[in-house]
Amino acid sequence: MDMIGNGTLGLGDRLPSLRKLGRDMGVSISTATQAYSELERKGVVEARPRSGYFVIQTGQRLPAPDADPLPAQPPRPVTRAGLIRTVLDYVGTKEAVPLGIIAPHPSLLPTRELGRLLSRHSRENGDLGLSYELVPGNPELRRQIAHRSLEADIPVRHDQVLVTNGAMEALYIALRCITRPGDNVVVQSPAYFCFLQLLETLGLRAIEVETSPDGGLDPALVADAAATYDVMACILVPNFANPDGSLTPDDTKREIVRLLEYMDIPLIEDDVSSDIHFGPKRPGTYKQFDEKGLVMMCSSLSKTVAPGWRIGWMLPGRFLDKAREIKATTNVCSATPTQAAMADFLREGRMEKQLTKIRHAIRRSMDTMQLELKRHFPEGTRVTHPQGGSVLWVTLPGGVDGVEFFFEARERGIGLAPGGIFTTRDRFTSNIRLSCGGVWTDEIAGGIRTLGRLAHDMS
Amino acid sequence: MDMIGNGTLGLGDRLPSLRKLGRDMGVSISTATQAYSELERKGVVEARPRSGYFVIQTGQRLPAPDADPLPAQPPRPVTRAGLIRTVLDYVGTKEAVPLGIIAPHPSLLPTRELGRLLSRHSRENGDLGLSYELVPGNPELRRQIAHRSLEADIPVRHDQVLVTNGAMEALYIALRCITRPGDNVVVQSPAYFCFLQLLETLGLRAIEVETSPDGGLDPALVADAAATYDVMACILVPNFANPDGSLTPDDTKREIVRLLEYMDIPLIEDDVSSDIHFGPKRPGTYKQFDEKGLVMMCSSLSKTVAPGWRIGWMLPGRFLDKAREIKATTNVCSATPTQAAMADFLREGRMEKQLTKIRHAIRRSMDTMQLELKRHFPEGTRVTHPQGGSVLWVTLPGGVDGVEFFFEARERGIGLAPGGIFTTRDRFTSNIRLSCGGVWTDEIAGGIRTLGRLAHDMS
Repeated sequence: MDMIGNGTLGLGDRLPSLRKLGRDMGVSISTATQAYSELERKGVVEARPRSGYFVIQTGQRLPAPDADPLPAQPPRPVTRAGLIRTVLDYVGTKEAVPLGIIAPHPSLLPTRELGRLLSRHSRENGDLGLSYELVPGNPELRRQIAHRSLEADIPVRHDQVLVTNGAMEALYIALRCITRPGDNVVVQSPAYFCFLQLLETLGLRAIEVETSPDGGLDPALVADAAATYDVMACILVPNFANPDGSLTPDDTKREIVRLLEYMDIPLIEDDVSSDIHFGPKRPGTYKQFDEKGLVMMCSSLSKTVAPGWRIGWMLPGRFLDKAREIKATTNVCSATPTQAAMADFLREGRMEKQLTKIRHAIRRSMDTMQLELKRHFPEGTRVTHPQGGSVLWVTLPGGVDGVEFFFEARERGIGLAPGGIFTTRDRFTSNIRLSCGGVWTDEIAGGIRTLGRLAHDMS
Repeated sequence: MDMIGNGTLGLGDRLPSLRKLGRDMGVSISTATQAYSELERKGVVEARPRSGYFVIQTGQRLPAPDADPLPAQPPRPVTRAGLIRTVLDYVGTKEAVPLGIIAPHPSLLPTRELGRLLSRHSRENGDLGLSYELVPGNPELRRQIAHRSLEADIPVRHDQVLVTNGAMEALYIALRCITRPGDNVVVQSPAYFCFLQLLETLGLRAIEVETSPDGGLDPALVADAAATYDVMACILVPNFANPDGSLTPDDTKREIVRLLEYMDIPLIEDDVSSDIHFGPKRPGTYKQFDEKGLVMMCSSLSKTVAPGWRIGWMLPGRFLDKAREIKATTNVCSATPTQAAMADFLREGRMEKQLTKIRHAIRRSMDTMQLELKRHFPEGTRVTHPQGGSVLWVTLPGGVDGVEFFFEARERGIGLAPGGIFTTRDRFTSNIRLSCGGVWTDEIAGGIRTLGRLAHDMS
């Protein structure tokens, strides 16, 4: 790692073989393998079949945040609504430089294509386009979702799919299926603030379990939480978690599923970011290891195809009947025309091209953002190097307060999310989350420069 | 009334003046006025300005159901899900003769118009059509809803409107704002089964308060319930309630609002049917008498314009902030393109024509259904004569069991709703609800004939 850091090895260079590294460092080959694997997970090197490990990232980026280990935290009622709302009210406005909201840049979306399919549906289906859809959703859309799930190694039939208004509604239905006010729910820490908002409005208590940007979730911490407190559900993010970008390795996912099965605790999986992987392969999900129907997978097309169409779904496993009832009593069914047009989009095989486009664009803009952060932010700043998703989790140096930083940035017309909204505790006080929408504009470049100056001034 | 029943007075005839009636019957003019008002509410006669009362309905229809008075019933947990689901699973299928589902016939909907507006929106707004909408909804749509509310004597600004996925979502958000599992909620009896389903999934308890198809809700019964039990909310239907068609007079509405204000109990109003009035004027709402922001009005365009677009709204009064938070954590926001196109539909003034069309069509098909019921159903059958909405509430003679009747009808390919799903108790056992979609077809005529034979056979 030093050789990469000090410039001995540059971008594209081949690393010493595992055998050589083991010999030079006086460690076993398995230790050397572990070291390279860790570098690979951090995105510093990549393994090429039959060629060895190569450097894909050098010291041009800021270092990753230090681990901040903490045992599973006792359940807490959630009361973050005020701050979260202040943040959302601003970052969602058109005036703010869009570093605070997670949505692909509109120019990357298949606008013309979807418009054409929507018009065709209205024209060809006439009256039926205005009629109620079935509660579980458009049959063809469910078939397409089941088909894509199969491709991701999740064996599911179309009649086990429930279409929802985005992944948020899927998460809400999942929690309604298995919890009552006052129950404890495990969330990763840092936690996506929408999870905390949802727990708060449902009167649930959060048990925060530490994740590391590198290694993801530690099964021992989950076991610890489940053994210590009365846990009714876990909300886990398999890959590219918001905000720390963490990915939990597939073997660990399997271990956690087995552990929760053993304790009969349902696992709610938020899979919205997995499709935005920068590596060649979509990483695995908790659902693919589900043998008892205890995993309720939630996903959507909001981060990749059409945020405003509100098309998500859940694979509720053994809770299907209950989930259907909650969907029916929440809003009867999702809208007819958008579901039908999206089913056509998927059936016509448009998804892969769209995903490739989104992945490349976000990866490119994230690379640029890393370079610009390194250039403009003060020494001591740390940032994650996620291998997918669309957010960077930045730790500011010199004790800068993230919430204060948010307000100062707002003064300057820049949206961002302060670390404090990703926890129920006094943690992540020096963190901010920056979003990459996939398009690098002068406005965003200027925003990063301004934030850099601000970080210098405040630290 | 006898003179109408025995044929002395026919359709279109003028009734004796109030003075003459009072003299002939030996009663005061105020008693005579009351008698005529009751006939008017029942739709037997109508008052014409400066001309007197005229017969608009004669004995060609079946008599109205007997009143079935009952004090407010103690709170009960709701457990109707099984039967309701069995009914909904069948009546929603395309194969069933559509006497069980409430939705305007597709041919009455502005399909081409809305298709055109949706296509135009996709074409003209490009990228924005795929972006997230604001949490409270499309601003122009909210302006149009506020405008229509003002026309209905409800003073409300567009920033006090929250767009939802249909009225069902509005009701769900309203209940979530003010209740916790185990709380008691007053509902009218008979109650729309979706209210009961919603209470059941939220773990709430129903207090059923009798309504009469003629006089609507009795404030004394509401006061009684609120004095006897710990009531956290009331769900009331101002006009043309589903299933009994009852309308609560505006003065009574005012009285109930004042009563609930005095006791600080929020009133959730389901206003979805008020636009389908057969008389010249839209009847009033509870919301128009709201002085303390305690009335949460819920409505939609599902019964009049586009069921499958899932466009509803609420006027949450003092609970606006909380309602917004629940909307945000349920599904972030409603879909962008359908909201925009519907805003255009309203802005271009298309609504009045559509409502006129729907009202006339439903009234016509309901008149026909009344005649056919009279012709084919056994003597002793009773049916409501609602002045709006789209359902008839039928009491079968001879102790016929409504649930058994539902299953027999299903055998014969006919959908209907049995009385038992409109209560948590053993009531309305001989009732069925029949829907009028606004188009009279041979299929429906045949269905009524078959049901009539069935009623003869079973009674």
